[in-house]
Amino acid sequence: MVSLRASVHRIAASAPDDLSGLEALIEAGLDPASIVAVLGKTEGNGCVNDFTRGFATATFQRFFERHGVEGVSIVMSGGTEGALSPHWTVFARHEVADEPRGSALAVGVSRTPDMPPEHLGRREQVALVAEGVRAAMRDAGIEKPEDVHFVQIKCPLLTSARIGDAKARGKTVAVGDTLKSMGLSRAASALGVAVALCELDLATLSDEAIGVDFTLYSGRASTSAGVELFDHEIVVLGMSPRWSGPFAMDHAVMADCIDTAGIRQALARLPQGRLAAVLAKAEASPSGAVRGARHTMLDDSDIASTRHARAFVGGVLAGLFADTMLYVSGGAEHQGPPGGGPVAIIIEREERP
Amino acid sequence: MVSLRASVHRIAASAPDDLSGLEALIEAGLDPASIVAVLGKTEGNGCVNDFTRGFATATFQRFFERHGVEGVSIVMSGGTEGALSPHWTVFARHEVADEPRGSALAVGVSRTPDMPPEHLGRREQVALVAEGVRAAMRDAGIEKPEDVHFVQIKCPLLTSARIGDAKARGKTVAVGDTLKSMGLSRAASALGVAVALCELDLATLSDEAIGVDFTLYSGRASTSAGVELFDHEIVVLGMSPRWSGPFAMDHAVMADCIDTAGIRQALARLPQGRLAAVLAKAEASPSGAVRGARHTMLDDSDIASTRHARAFVGGVLAGLFADTMLYVSGGAEHQGPPGGGPVAIIIEREERP
Amino acid sequence: MVSLRASVHRIAASAPDDLSGLEALIEAGLDPASIVAVLGKTEGNGCVNDFTRGFATATFQRFFERHGVEGVSIVMSGGTEGALSPHWTVFARHEVADEPRGSALAVGVSRTPDMPPEHLGRREQVALVAEGVRAAMRDAGIEKPEDVHFVQIKCPLLTSARIGDAKARGKTVAVGDTLKSMGLSRAASALGVAVALCELDLATLSDEAIGVDFTLYSGRASTSAGVELFDHEIVVLGMSPRWSGPFAMDHAVMADCIDTAGIRQALARLPQGRLAAVLAKAEASPSGAVRGARHTMLDDSDIASTRHARAFVGGVLAGLFADTMLYVSGGAEHQGPPGGGPVAIIIEREERP
Amino acid sequence: MVSLRASVHRIAASAPDDLSGLEALIEAGLDPASIVAVLGKTEGNGCVNDFTRGFATATFQRFFERHGVEGVSIVMSGGTEGALSPHWTVFARHEVADEPRGSALAVGVSRTPDMPPEHLGRREQVALVAEGVRAAMRDAGIEKPEDVHFVQIKCPLLTSARIGDAKARGKTVAVGDTLKSMGLSRAASALGVAVALCELDLATLSDEAIGVDFTLYSGRASTSAGVELFDHEIVVLGMSPRWSGPFAMDHAVMADCIDTAGIRQALARLPQGRLAAVLAKAEASPSGAVRGARHTMLDDSDIASTRHARAFVGGVLAGLFADTMLYVSGGAEHQGPPGGGPVAIIIEREERP
Repeated sequence: MVSLRASVHRIAASAPDDLSGLEALIEAGLDPASIVAVLGKTEGNGCVNDFTRGFATATFQRFFERHGVEGVSIVMSGGTEGALSPHWTVFARHEVADEPRGSALAVGVSRTPDMPPEHLGRREQVALVAEGVRAAMRDAGIEKPEDVHFVQIKCPLLTSARIGDAKARGKTVAVGDTLKSMGLSRAASALGVAVALCELDLATLSDEAIGVDFTLYSGRASTSAGVELFDHEIVVLGMSPRWSGPFAMDHAVMADCIDTAGIRQALARLPQGRLAAVLAKAEASPSGAVRGARHTMLDDSDIASTRHARAFVGGVLAGLFADTMLYVSGGAEHQGPPGGGPVAIIIEREERP
Repeated sequence: MVSLRASVHRIAASAPDDLSGLEALIEAGLDPASIVAVLGKTEGNGCVNDFTRGFATATFQRFFERHGVEGVSIVMSGGTEGALSPHWTVFARHEVADEPRGSALAVGVSRTPDMPPEHLGRREQVALVAEGVRAAMRDAGIEKPEDVHFVQIKCPLLTSARIGDAKARGKTVAVGDTLKSMGLSRAASALGVAVALCELDLATLSDEAIGVDFTLYSGRASTSAGVELFDHEIVVLGMSPRWSGPFAMDHAVMADCIDTAGIRQALARLPQGRLAAVLAKAEASPSGAVRGARHTMLDDSDIASTRHARAFVGGVLAGLFADTMLYVSGGAEHQGPPGGGPVAIIIEREERP
Repeated sequence: MVSLRASVHRIAASAPDDLSGLEALIEAGLDPASIVAVLGKTEGNGCVNDFTRGFATATFQRFFERHGVEGVSIVMSGGTEGALSPHWTVFARHEVADEPRGSALAVGVSRTPDMPPEHLGRREQVALVAEGVRAAMRDAGIEKPEDVHFVQIKCPLLTSARIGDAKARGKTVAVGDTLKSMGLSRAASALGVAVALCELDLATLSDEAIGVDFTLYSGRASTSAGVELFDHEIVVLGMSPRWSGPFAMDHAVMADCIDTAGIRQALARLPQGRLAAVLAKAEASPSGAVRGARHTMLDDSDIASTRHARAFVGGVLAGLFADTMLYVSGGAEHQGPPGGGPVAIIIEREERP
Repeated sequence: MVSLRASVHRIAASAPDDLSGLEALIEAGLDPASIVAVLGKTEGNGCVNDFTRGFATATFQRFFERHGVEGVSIVMSGGTEGALSPHWTVFARHEVADEPRGSALAVGVSRTPDMPPEHLGRREQVALVAEGVRAAMRDAGIEKPEDVHFVQIKCPLLTSARIGDAKARGKTVAVGDTLKSMGLSRAASALGVAVALCELDLATLSDEAIGVDFTLYSGRASTSAGVELFDHEIVVLGMSPRWSGPFAMDHAVMADCIDTAGIRQALARLPQGRLAAVLAKAEASPSGAVRGARHTMLDDSDIASTRHARAFVGGVLAGLFADTMLYVSGGAEHQGPPGGGPVAIIIEREERP
């Protein structure tokens, strides 16, 4: 009898091109071919002109090329404001001879078919992503949507060439501005997660609500857009009875940027152990206030609101977890409620002897 | 039998010149002449070119002029990064016919004599401030140093004219750079608090340690330098058996920027009630790391480290107190340990009937 | 025989509330009642949260109150990036016994009637401003549109209350977003200048072009929006045969941010003398390139593009004029061509004996 | 009879890793082995946490590895503020069968021996660099110091390990702060250029003046520090009678940031032709004023003064040259006078048939 076993490695990065920690792990026995996903926090501004993400991605790509490994999902999130600490979280999986006992962290991946540009930001993209999330759940051996605790999606965007291609075929695109297409693709992807996880019924969703009606959201989605893709890279993290090993996962949804009640409850539900990773989304409350008190994040022309939000929510979570090596990512269209966001927690419990 | 009674009013500010909230309180019965101190958080960058502090101070000065009130200590701290909310905390006191029961929040003020510029940043300033803090304690009716929970000091700085004055009298100054004189004055003032509160023995202090040896600190000092002063404005907050009323106060010292253990203990010591104010200092850990994990605050050439630190520690405290109207001030020479800082808490308990 | 005579005073400011230079001028004989307009450059970020403008305006308002002077147009432009120097340019006028010889700098002012909110950003505002500019031209004794070289306009914006007022009367507003209403009001005001100066035919203008079709512009408009107004404050600067005195004015339009040819020609047309003032608008080329070379101003998430543009165009002009006390203002909807802008020059010629 | 011939290629970069322009040149016939130096402007902040330099450098290194080319000096300067345009300037040289007529642009390179850490920032480094510059002059076939117009130097810095190494050998280092060692190494390197070019007599220089007395400077030095070096990479650009080809070079020194007189004279001395490159250094005037007018670059806590200076001087030069693809580099210890800087100009004259 065999089972699958996930491992989670949180590795300090001294710079966007510092893979020395990963290389040490490889030397210590981690098989590069077992790696399925890397989520990184790099020390750029996390906004338009953040080249630390590209620098880190290029460095990882060469690393995997050198090791002959293909298909690893590499997601870089810029911005380690406040005391957040730059790091890589590496997810690996391999077969073990153990019989599963109870359930354990499961990691599944999938890629959707290429998406025609005219589907971006529309119900077609939502449906496509939902199908992709279901495929990744199957890959992870997760049957029940409530066992999924985090879904990371890398989605395509529109370029002038892609818009031209759509028009040449007599199609319209949802948005002509290529920068705005990034937000719309993230929005539709997040709603695709919501549909797959039964947080939203696709039948009730109209094109007009995508990127607009933020009362619709997934409490477990994290999405980012990249120019290099035509399809979607999907990583599903959750708990499965078919997996073994010490890692356990749960999640909470912050209703606003100082809401820690749900996180405390999630921590209480999880087994005792070492904190292995925290994955969260943060954004400035679009209302301009938190529980009635005005904030100034949206009016600061010197610091982008996403930087403020990561620093502040980073503090909220670091105070709670007593840890600063947290994946706190900004920009959260339909990813948690407006001004709030999803928080996923992975614990490495003490191994049962 | 009479006693003194303090009141604490936390008032939202929609801009650095918005006193509408204070004016509403005056109309509702607050006597302007009872006000002894204002601590404000304004929405500037909290650094060199932050004119929101001067704008707010000028607005308050005209307000008090119009009301014929003199001698109010006005302290403006710039920077409401993250979800911190701009606000004024107004401290007032008046006599009441109540007999004190137990003890209550006490507010005392004092001013030192004018200080010759050659004393700035030296043991003479430390001694002068220590004497001033003792005077403010007497004004507050606080006998025991351990009953003091926060000391706000506004101290002078060096200007070219003042340096010239010292030199004309054959004296040397501790530092020739006027900007650096601000930090040195804050440093000596904080050590003056430490001496008055028996956290430090003046006899063991050398001039060389001031602004240099940050293992020496007060856990209750908050200091800022202003060009308009030649003396020191001192506000002491603490608990006194001679005062009555619903407000109670305690404090903790954060050992680093994610250390909340002491704050939780202080909260547990305090009576139940409504949070009336939180007064805290924050700074980026000068070691470049928090519990071994690198932070990037000191390497970010786009955002000053003080802004990062306020946003992050603001998040730590806001998550803990479920409140964003917090006085979190940056720059913390000898004010709490390196990378940490003092946190004072004021609670308004339910009035005993 | 009498004539009018304008004077232009460029005064260094050491801070947003520094009027010591103006006070020195008053002591030296300048009549406060002769002042009709102040254009200031303050050292804030020039964007949403720039409180140096409000601080300076409040300081000037109290100054004029103290001197019993009403109706002075106070326009503060934030942002002295690069080596631009914070300063006030004070425009005054008074009658003299001279007979005019040739022509000289003329300054005229006007205010429009209050504008109903539903007219903002529409042809009605354009027409209203055009009429106001014509009134200010009459006040200045300028008959020919080509003799006008700079028009500064302060225009109203929409607030929630004003939008509500319009709706209560069954009217629609051009834009529901109050921040966007600032840009739209500036846009319509600039086109109003274009109409008055015969740069644009109102009959050919549609509502849809306002704030959208930037090929339509005035080469002499400079507009800013303020929440305190319901009408428009208009200052017209130009040359009139009815005025005397040493000041002469001309202008040029930069086609892009490095186009100095027209400015050199304007300088050549002007008489020899001391540079008295330069008034210019600057913006990042919206195409993302200057003469085919990419710029990064619009992609920099750390520094607003308006700050980049003021610093850079400030350098272009300061190199040309060998002077850094220049009024370079950002944001330029319909004020000069896209990526370029108007530049007005005032020279104080040597007085003929 | 053969001669050497230099070529200068200014290539637009759409991102820090965009070498498509260089690859097109290679395809069009440029021999990668002929390339001796690359000077790049990348779109980071040009300060501590600017990773665009490292990203670009890593990309070029792989490019040259792929082409089997070694020893190319790669110098990346971050910061394209204002309308400055990101680009690479590639210097190549090859032998031609032409007889030299007159003189032409010459490019020489050299590397010094490894420098012991205890020499950094001291007269020993100055002497070492001076010798290296002389070697690069010989490599360039330039005999007279006045024929050198620009010297680019990449110099080492101190790390904890290197300081430890010095101490282990009983030596002291000039500075214990590794960040400050960068400035000191740049300072000593610039003075080394001054010595080699007879702008300064080494015999009169004391260790104490290095990094302190900025009245000592080279009008042709541009230096940057890198952690990867133990020696110095030196590129000398100037005019030599032994070289042929269309490129000609001259230089000027700006006395302050708006001083264009010398540049106009240099342009007048140069032959007619196409502007091939401008290489300049810029810094905020340390006095806080330009020709008596206050600037705010040193007081802006939101934007580093080096960014202000590059944007502004970029504007001064772009207005003059009508070109935005300029190499304007910040930080200028002993590189031009305080607040000013060197400006080198390369022209490609029309080939004589």
